[in-house]
Amino acid sequence: MPRTVFHVDQAKSMRDQATPGHNRWHPDIPAVAEVRPGDEFRVECKDWTDGQVHDDDSANDVRDMVLDHNHMLSGPIAVAGAEPGDLLVVDYLDIGPANTVDRGKGEQAGQGWGYTGIFARDNGGGFLTDHYPEAGKAIWDFHGRFATSRHLPGVRIASNIHPGLAGCAPSAELLAAWNRREQALIDTDPHRVPPLALPPLETNSLLGSLTGAERERVAREGARTVPPREHGGNVDIKNLGIGSRVYYPVYVPGAKFSIGDLHFAQGDGEISFCGAVEMGGHVDIGVDLVKGGMRAYNATTPIFRPGRQEPRYDEFVSFVGISVDESGDQHYMNATVAYRRACLQAIAYLEQFGYTGRQAYLILCAAPIEGRVSGIVDIPNACCSLYLPTEIFDFDVRPGADGPVAVDRGECALAD
Amino acid sequence: MPRTVFHVDQAKSMRDQATPGHNRWHPDIPAVAEVRPGDEFRVECKDWTDGQVHDDDSANDVRDMVLDHNHMLSGPIAVAGAEPGDLLVVDYLDIGPANTVDRGKGEQAGQGWGYTGIFARDNGGGFLTDHYPEAGKAIWDFHGRFATSRHLPGVRIASNIHPGLAGCAPSAELLAAWNRREQALIDTDPHRVPPLALPPLETNSLLGSLTGAERERVAREGARTVPPREHGGNVDIKNLGIGSRVYYPVYVPGAKFSIGDLHFAQGDGEISFCGAVEMGGHVDIGVDLVKGGMRAYNATTPIFRPGRQEPRYDEFVSFVGISVDESGDQHYMNATVAYRRACLQAIAYLEQFGYTGRQAYLILCAAPIEGRVSGIVDIPNACCSLYLPTEIFDFDVRPGADGPVAVDRGECALAD
Amino acid sequence: MPRTVFHVDQAKSMRDQATPGHNRWHPDIPAVAEVRPGDEFRVECKDWTDGQVHDDDSANDVRDMVLDHNHMLSGPIAVAGAEPGDLLVVDYLDIGPANTVDRGKGEQAGQGWGYTGIFARDNGGGFLTDHYPEAGKAIWDFHGRFATSRHLPGVRIASNIHPGLAGCAPSAELLAAWNRREQALIDTDPHRVPPLALPPLETNSLLGSLTGAERERVAREGARTVPPREHGGNVDIKNLGIGSRVYYPVYVPGAKFSIGDLHFAQGDGEISFCGAVEMGGHVDIGVDLVKGGMRAYNATTPIFRPGRQEPRYDEFVSFVGISVDESGDQHYMNATVAYRRACLQAIAYLEQFGYTGRQAYLILCAAPIEGRVSGIVDIPNACCSLYLPTEIFDFDVRPGADGPVAVDRGECALAD
Amino acid sequence: MPRTVFHVDQAKSMRDQATPGHNRWHPDIPAVAEVRPGDEFRVECKDWTDGQVHDDDSANDVRDMVLDHNHMLSGPIAVAGAEPGDLLVVDYLDIGPANTVDRGKGEQAGQGWGYTGIFARDNGGGFLTDHYPEAGKAIWDFHGRFATSRHLPGVRIASNIHPGLAGCAPSAELLAAWNRREQALIDTDPHRVPPLALPPLETNSLLGSLTGAERERVAREGARTVPPREHGGNVDIKNLGIGSRVYYPVYVPGAKFSIGDLHFAQGDGEISFCGAVEMGGHVDIGVDLVKGGMRAYNATTPIFRPGRQEPRYDEFVSFVGISVDESGDQHYMNATVAYRRACLQAIAYLEQFGYTGRQAYLILCAAPIEGRVSGIVDIPNACCSLYLPTEIFDFDVRPGADGPVAVDRGECALAD
Repeated sequence: MPRTVFHVDQAKSMRDQATPGHNRWHPDIPAVAEVRPGDEFRVECKDWTDGQVHDDDSANDVRDMVLDHNHMLSGPIAVAGAEPGDLLVVDYLDIGPANTVDRGKGEQAGQGWGYTGIFARDNGGGFLTDHYPEAGKAIWDFHGRFATSRHLPGVRIASNIHPGLAGCAPSAELLAAWNRREQALIDTDPHRVPPLALPPLETNSLLGSLTGAERERVAREGARTVPPREHGGNVDIKNLGIGSRVYYPVYVPGAKFSIGDLHFAQGDGEISFCGAVEMGGHVDIGVDLVKGGMRAYNATTPIFRPGRQEPRYDEFVSFVGISVDESGDQHYMNATVAYRRACLQAIAYLEQFGYTGRQAYLILCAAPIEGRVSGIVDIPNACCSLYLPTEIFDFDVRPGADGPVAVDRGECALAD
Repeated sequence: MPRTVFHVDQAKSMRDQATPGHNRWHPDIPAVAEVRPGDEFRVECKDWTDGQVHDDDSANDVRDMVLDHNHMLSGPIAVAGAEPGDLLVVDYLDIGPANTVDRGKGEQAGQGWGYTGIFARDNGGGFLTDHYPEAGKAIWDFHGRFATSRHLPGVRIASNIHPGLAGCAPSAELLAAWNRREQALIDTDPHRVPPLALPPLETNSLLGSLTGAERERVAREGARTVPPREHGGNVDIKNLGIGSRVYYPVYVPGAKFSIGDLHFAQGDGEISFCGAVEMGGHVDIGVDLVKGGMRAYNATTPIFRPGRQEPRYDEFVSFVGISVDESGDQHYMNATVAYRRACLQAIAYLEQFGYTGRQAYLILCAAPIEGRVSGIVDIPNACCSLYLPTEIFDFDVRPGADGPVAVDRGECALAD
Repeated sequence: MPRTVFHVDQAKSMRDQATPGHNRWHPDIPAVAEVRPGDEFRVECKDWTDGQVHDDDSANDVRDMVLDHNHMLSGPIAVAGAEPGDLLVVDYLDIGPANTVDRGKGEQAGQGWGYTGIFARDNGGGFLTDHYPEAGKAIWDFHGRFATSRHLPGVRIASNIHPGLAGCAPSAELLAAWNRREQALIDTDPHRVPPLALPPLETNSLLGSLTGAERERVAREGARTVPPREHGGNVDIKNLGIGSRVYYPVYVPGAKFSIGDLHFAQGDGEISFCGAVEMGGHVDIGVDLVKGGMRAYNATTPIFRPGRQEPRYDEFVSFVGISVDESGDQHYMNATVAYRRACLQAIAYLEQFGYTGRQAYLILCAAPIEGRVSGIVDIPNACCSLYLPTEIFDFDVRPGADGPVAVDRGECALAD
Repeated sequence: MPRTVFHVDQAKSMRDQATPGHNRWHPDIPAVAEVRPGDEFRVECKDWTDGQVHDDDSANDVRDMVLDHNHMLSGPIAVAGAEPGDLLVVDYLDIGPANTVDRGKGEQAGQGWGYTGIFARDNGGGFLTDHYPEAGKAIWDFHGRFATSRHLPGVRIASNIHPGLAGCAPSAELLAAWNRREQALIDTDPHRVPPLALPPLETNSLLGSLTGAERERVAREGARTVPPREHGGNVDIKNLGIGSRVYYPVYVPGAKFSIGDLHFAQGDGEISFCGAVEMGGHVDIGVDLVKGGMRAYNATTPIFRPGRQEPRYDEFVSFVGISVDESGDQHYMNATVAYRRACLQAIAYLEQFGYTGRQAYLILCAAPIEGRVSGIVDIPNACCSLYLPTEIFDFDVRPGADGPVAVDRGECALAD
């Protein structure tokens, strides 16, 4: 167990830690620690919402979430010698949930449990928000490297634990480009619900140790953490798990690496927006540098090598989606529509076994499903395919001549 | 080796076979054979272009291809007892290239070799046509279940052989819906190059044994075979290989199953439109029925279970794309843009090892790359990731501290 | 499909082919063809018994087999430039069963079907011959790359097709060492049934084109083909499948490579002696040389790299054996006893689901079971483990709280 | 993190824990805790030698080890309701090394590091003790779920963490049978070095809370922990990792389950006797019962289902061994000899890359090699095969036309 360079007391808000982290991207947020190439160290993390979700049977907390707090990140961590144009090599040596002596009423996400949420359409939304506009939630109980949910009976998933969000601080120029292009998108439909994108927001911003006017400036400029961008950020790639090595572009001296949004498990797409099994925990990291690596490898986004510890699932029931929407309208080569249709087909299938649509939606979020861009050239229809691992179910979910056996499987947690 | 119910003489056009197939979808194309549930049988196939591409070092044939001929399908095959609403169970028991005594000048695609093409922007286009608007081609030499290309030195791929295109005939109503929605899309920009979609076209249509007025009617109505649709069709899913079991929706009495467009190998996306290793060959199929299966499983598109014989590649270099386009413009949750950016990043990476952009493009088409919809909820950026198997290269393609070693790797076949 | 350098008419005995092969190892059997490094070519093979087993429901043929005919090999094939001390690089590019127009009464093993046999104790024996001393047989029907057996209901296996036997001719010195050491073993118990080893035997020997006195000499000296030896030979390694690359030691000028005993499928151990799914067929091979490779790599036996096309089975029920025999007697670090106990435990387990012991034995022979030397140091007990893939069964073979459901599953083919 | 039912202070000997464990098997060692079916709990463990090996560069500690202390086990843990004839279902939910704040001089195995040892021939020996009779050692540094060794440069292995030893207490009858059969073996050569087996030994025995005459009796009768036996025990099966489910036979009321000998990593065979990456740590366990399961499943040894979290290695260089010993003498179907020859061939191969024989031996011990019983019927030669994962090396270990590049790779830790 390497030394910890970023400590988190899970019982407290990120705002109240001895050394707080941040929830906006900006080059001027001061580094909280410095490491050297070759070092290995531990970073502790709060769950992305900073503890807004509770281990109970109501989705009120998801419905009422204050999204401005998200994502609570640990860092920035400076890497000695890192310069713009380098690639920061990050080895994810180990990742685990937050420790706890015993699970009780006050325990935070990660301390024996995690959650998957469906945001309401008017507060965050998600990939299928037009179909499932109300808030929902599933609490997952951790059993070592496995999880089950009382809200999703019949399912047991192996952890493909990974950080949802990590990357180096943007340069001022890159940050400006982000804000510019996202505002341009917002301006095309500024009152849309859910919004097209999230502009900088001072409210509830946390910017490490910054204070005063500098804090105000950075809060006005700092990019929101929701989207993945050139630096990586909130990529939510389930394959960035234990043993993976990521080459992150460096934009500022010292790299200023931050990380958070740990996921106990997730399927491709993280389709409900709060779709992973969310938790606080720790990450053991090794770092190194490829000097001048961005140019050497033409790297404008992170390059990575997946690890060897992903759980093996090799039996699937698979579904196909094309870019014709639910109304029957034809879209041109739209992989987003195609993947949505594949997800909806999978949900419709699982409903025949007794799950509600919301439960099935939550399963697709959290289980290690594979989501592939299968055909992206056959005009006008993109084709995406979704692979649901059969072995997460304690019943036979495969199609057969006798048809599915529907059983009452209850319901996920709902809001009042 | 089961009995053959559809014979192809590879030396002849599909039009000149004793029993010709078809290249449009229509419920009224007569079945050429009937099988029973439980039967196993062989179907032989021409390559999708009906032999327009030659084993040479010029891409003129790809540049000048007459796309109206595509895709040449074998069938329709009637399944006794199949009725609308059933699911037709299709087991892909074995798939192989076309036999040949020895490879010579006159051999057709599949007879010892296959091809991958980049269509010109003004004749077909492809996923990256704005970047690579000229025609290109790679000829692949088969070595048992492996292939190499003199146009792509340093690469050797294991076959993930599969049919690009298969499905049951649409009902008249479904066919009408297809034509209606696709025409509506075309009408939004009728003169676009490449076109948004392809309407029915009598020219060069092949409709089995139909003749006379009936032939003319069907030719006017028959849907083009390019896009995947509800029945499956040209899904180009690389995971539908040997050992996979597919449940195809049935829309007409007897199901009328057709198949073609065999691929020796392909990566997710088939990104150049002619992006698989294309060939003629044979498929050994077992069929069965799930009576009333469409309703029982809520199946509106094919459901499938992948096979166990996909080649194993477990070491990857991976790339990330977000839905910001090449001009820096922000798109809202556009997985198509995100996957394109991941592809372009992978090409830029491979160029650093000495491949031309076109060669790298062709490699991504044909090699068993994984293309995943990783994050589809983090507004405004979709995130796709692309996994390039390292072990198809005979050099070390992984990133490292010393940077890539660029070697002159020639060029793919080009047009005059 | 590469050119064929060794032709087999499956309807005829190996003895009656235009160019016959051989069934003994000797450096002086003349080569039947010559290939060059870099060449790719096809070799056709008879099944190892030269057609003694029939597609019927009696094990009389197995009981009465004339074992002197085995194994019928195709070759020797000379490789230009190969010299003693080289390593012959052999790529198994593709392997398949024998072609046939349609399966009928007269078809040979490989032509749509294969067999697995249990030899009688007094004619061949096998790993569990003390437990199953009578002959038994299962006929497997091929379904593309899968097989089922009417004698083993409930089982369907994916092919891990591979050659059981291949290697280069021994030098005269190596051959003499083989005969010497094996005779020394025989001499310790010359009348044992089954015998400890098989000495050279003129009866029923086949030695290619040799005639006269030379034939007689070689027949007297030629080593039997049953055991694996330094050159490889009858290693029966199920992982030497499609895509594997083997480096075979070369002992004589031209290497003189021979191959045969094709297996459609097999588990680790091939435990009944005739334990694979045996068949005739073809192998597509590429060859090359590592000059002086034996010394460079310290290679005294073949070195190999497994292929990428082995079928994936990742769910297992597993069994443990230790080196205490069935009588309760303690053996010192005896992995053979430990693996036998693991096999017997697996059979006892399968009997609880309704198979007879002989059926279960045959399943373990042919299915892609993994057999591992797990612990070989914990005195006095070796520990072996056996991994039975659950997904070959069409019922749930996993242990559970409710116990197994025994169903009448008939019996394998028996002798009168 | 479940509640801990067995605590270990790694800084102290197992003998000095508040609740000590045991190092002999006997039904009368009192249970230290009771759990119920359905419970999940944590057990902490010392390394198997109780801290005799140090993080230094001398193998004196391995040479001089007092083997009587081994293996230090945590338990016995009673399971409410368990009765003889049941199967105890054990889920290995998570396993990890011992925690430590920071690694320093006094840290114990598991606290940031582990070890692999070669015992001297006259004190323990091992599988290759005739070839490597002197003591040797490698210290492994943990990097999250990976390990490297300063004594084995160029190697980095992914953890396949598992318990080497676990099982339920034997009944008095079973214990008597063990002692009887092992003594009978010892009696055949009572002065052999290393010995054929280890009889009960009072010296250095630890028997939980037993005292007085009862302690003396149990010490005289208690079976040593070295061999695997019917109850499981020291099976050293590398596949019993995270996510595996084991069905252990129950012989006494309450089952009395004990566990220890945690391995950070190991190859098949654990070939040097101290061949895993040994450590102290913790195991999170879930338990349940299959009432009457021994009879229902004919289970006379543990049955198990491997987990899904084994690290993936799919590229191998593989070696073959047959049952002809190093002197050229022929053994009859001896898989132990065959596996030894495969190991020796692998070592000879690695020496050509610059490792010493002892280093190569240690690599084969600790790395996730696969060791298979490939052919066990081809008289007189058993055939075993060994699969060395290529990707644990930071150089290209595959054979090729240019031969291996030998580099000075130092030496492992040796004794004075």
